[in-house]
Amino acid sequence: MIVLKIGGASGVNLDTICADAAGLISQGQALVLVHGGSAETNEISTLLGHPPRFVTNETGFTSRYTDRATLEIFAMVTAGKINTLLVERLQRAGVNAFGLTGLDGRLMLAQRKEAIRIVENGRKLVLRDDYTGKIEQVNGALLTRLIESGLTPVIAPLALSARGEALNVDADRAAAYVAGAVKAEKLVILTNVPGLMRNFPDESTLIPHLSKAGLEQAISFAEGRMKKKVLGASEALGLGVAQVIFADGRTAHPLLDALAGKGTVIS
Amino acid sequence: MIVLKIGGASGVNLDTICADAAGLISQGQALVLVHGGSAETNEISTLLGHPPRFVTNETGFTSRYTDRATLEIFAMVTAGKINTLLVERLQRAGVNAFGLTGLDGRLMLAQRKEAIRIVENGRKLVLRDDYTGKIEQVNGALLTRLIESGLTPVIAPLALSARGEALNVDADRAAAYVAGAVKAEKLVILTNVPGLMRNFPDESTLIPHLSKAGLEQAISFAEGRMKKKVLGASEALGLGVAQVIFADGRTAHPLLDALAGKGTVIS
Repeated sequence: MIVLKIGGASGVNLDTICADAAGLISQGQALVLVHGGSAETNEISTLLGHPPRFVTNETGFTSRYTDRATLEIFAMVTAGKINTLLVERLQRAGVNAFGLTGLDGRLMLAQRKEAIRIVENGRKLVLRDDYTGKIEQVNGALLTRLIESGLTPVIAPLALSARGEALNVDADRAAAYVAGAVKAEKLVILTNVPGLMRNFPDESTLIPHLSKAGLEQAISFAEGRMKKKVLGASEALGLGVAQVIFADGRTAHPLLDALAGKGTVIS
Repeated sequence: MIVLKIGGASGVNLDTICADAAGLISQGQALVLVHGGSAETNEISTLLGHPPRFVTNETGFTSRYTDRATLEIFAMVTAGKINTLLVERLQRAGVNAFGLTGLDGRLMLAQRKEAIRIVENGRKLVLRDDYTGKIEQVNGALLTRLIESGLTPVIAPLALSARGEALNVDADRAAAYVAGAVKAEKLVILTNVPGLMRNFPDESTLIPHLSKAGLEQAISFAEGRMKKKVLGASEALGLGVAQVIFADGRTAHPLLDALAGKGTVIS
């Protein structure tokens, strides 16, 4: 079992990724896909007159401030556009893809972050009314049933709170929890960089291998969104996933290259 | 088994509909929901600078002209916003809802209308590059498997073409085909009018009962979007559904009232 996280950053080649995925699935490989949607949500929220707002917490993690209007746009873009078009693309490649969000059949349950403490212009602030969540549980049995029926799940990063609210969740960390829940051997995270770099964006400082112990240190030097991917990798290993691979989603064979060890292999 | 089509017209009360649905499901009633999304797609396409265009064919049926950009907005709104928020609302009411589109697991296969013949300002025109489809097949076994797992399917009106393209399909007719595929006894179509009227919008001309034979005639006097509902009713009866009910979705108990025979009962 492999879980594949596809990033939404510009340059990521969905055609070659889907072709690689279709090839592997036709050879009997079980695959679960998880996608993001941050970049496209930014574009569409701006067009709809509700531009995105990002906040940074006290430990340096950046996240989207998700009021109810943002949540609905996020759901619309990730579950409606990105998910549906990814399912379409996979179906066209011969994969019997099946799109779902964490709300469907209570696939992903999360704890809503009722108050987020942020730092803005050096000042500490508390934001409420945010619809962001931290995943607590993934229904692996539901995914396994779908896979056993010959379907390939494609998951949008939305989860359900205990009170039945839709929540925006981080897609990298969602992929980590999904990988743990389906007992995946590997979690592949494709993005628009070749992997984790010691000094971003100097590609000559790409780290080919990283131990579980080395991850802690990596959180401090990882840049921007890579911080969450490192955190996701750490969570995946903690949940029993043997290997996490950060690799380049822009190449002719992104998934095959990643599985051949190109990028940053963490184990 | 009951199939419930929920219209997206203004006034339709999702709270009372979901409360009725939750009550029935908790008593063991199997339910499949199908929703539309025309009104909200119009709003959002206009906001995104791609206003909707409606066309009328030679026999007087009106439909959305769906170029690729429109299709993607339609998918975004119906599958992402309406479907996700309906699943959220049902989950909050205690229903283990499960959203899907016709692309997921090839649930609904449709034939793409490659060329649509329309009448505009009295002139006949042929439009190509339209992503609208006519449903040919619904995978009832997939829905039955979901229901047997304790899930309540909630379906967005998108289907897959033989060439693997996402298509916009009419939600009323989709509901009819879904009802046929799951061998439903009843198809309930809730909208923002009390039922089929002999002289729309004169509610004193509401038709309480209509025979299968009477449906043919009804197509000629049904107004606007009601024409497709009448066609859907006819298709549902042809597929073995015993009863189709058009009823008011704005009341305190829309679904219970419909099942009690309020509205227009067709059998």
